[in-house]
Amino acid sequence: MKELKDYVLTIPDFPEPGIMFRDITSVLQDADGLRLAIDTMTGLVKDVDYDVIAGAESRGFCFGAPMAYNENKPLVLIRKKGKLPRETVAVEYDLEYGKAILEIHKDAIKPGQKVLLVDDLIATGGTTMAMVKLIESLGGEVVGVVVMMELAGLKGRERLGKYPLYAAITYEGK
Amino acid sequence: MKELKDYVLTIPDFPEPGIMFRDITSVLQDADGLRLAIDTMTGLVKDVDYDVIAGAESRGFCFGAPMAYNENKPLVLIRKKGKLPRETVAVEYDLEYGKAILEIHKDAIKPGQKVLLVDDLIATGGTTMAMVKLIESLGGEVVGVVVMMELAGLKGRERLGKYPLYAAITYEGK
Repeated sequence: MKELKDYVLTIPDFPEPGIMFRDITSVLQDADGLRLAIDTMTGLVKDVDYDVIAGAESRGFCFGAPMAYNENKPLVLIRKKGKLPRETVAVEYDLEYGKAILEIHKDAIKPGQKVLLVDDLIATGGTTMAMVKLIESLGGEVVGVVVMMELAGLKGRERLGKYPLYAAITYEGK
Repeated sequence: MKELKDYVLTIPDFPEPGIMFRDITSVLQDADGLRLAIDTMTGLVKDVDYDVIAGAESRGFCFGAPMAYNENKPLVLIRKKGKLPRETVAVEYDLEYGKAILEIHKDAIKPGQKVLLVDDLIATGGTTMAMVKLIESLGGEVVGVVVMMELAGLKGRERLGKYPLYAAITYEGK
């Protein structure tokens, strides 16, 4: 029986030299891999009480959408600047080189709603913490973060602090 | 009982004056809307024989991923230039202003595989035909295109020609 890790391809030196890129597309493009990923992530948060799933553009949608469908929850999209058509709030955050902006619709989260963040990967946690800020700026409560892969060497879990992190796979390196 | 159309918000003058933007995020951020969208689209293609679902970045992933999970099919990602880590083929296509490039992994489709394209929307069909080109360049056969919304006034269906188009909602205008 294959494990989830067996579906992940590792590409050396992408997108730049020295990075071991863990590819999630090889998981998704195998029907058994896709099923195992979604079922594992859903199982990790089965005791978490949440009202809404929020996913970040664009790989987060691949995991957030099936989980939301299966669990009968709303799916809220967090997108790059200028992509969402209605009134938004935005957060700017640091990337390794430069900055990026994420947005969420103002009406996407109601005050007091419990939100589960879903993403493919947590590395340094910078994107995840930007998502947390967006949810909290709308009065939502982040009750957990679930990812398919955690790159433990980049210490995203520490940066998340009080927000519980659930990872289907943990890689010790970067 | 609400219909799928009832979940779609229309935003006038986005992203530019004169465009009536049909918003799919309002469908996804309602658990019943999300379920109805996926179930309707899945039902439209229940008699189509396909091996693989392919979706285009990034809204296509929101529909393609749950459909692939539910139907136990692989999900292949078609992405913007430079996002896919392994060896790709690319296609350039025209937008209203300028050009865009889409890519697919070379190993994502095996020759002879039957592929269902999934997207949120078909307008002029330019993006959809670019997706068709990518699939066919790998030897795949596009057996259908399923979208949540068709903007019939932009004549995407005519541009698709022999490729069957299935739309959960058809708007007569642009």
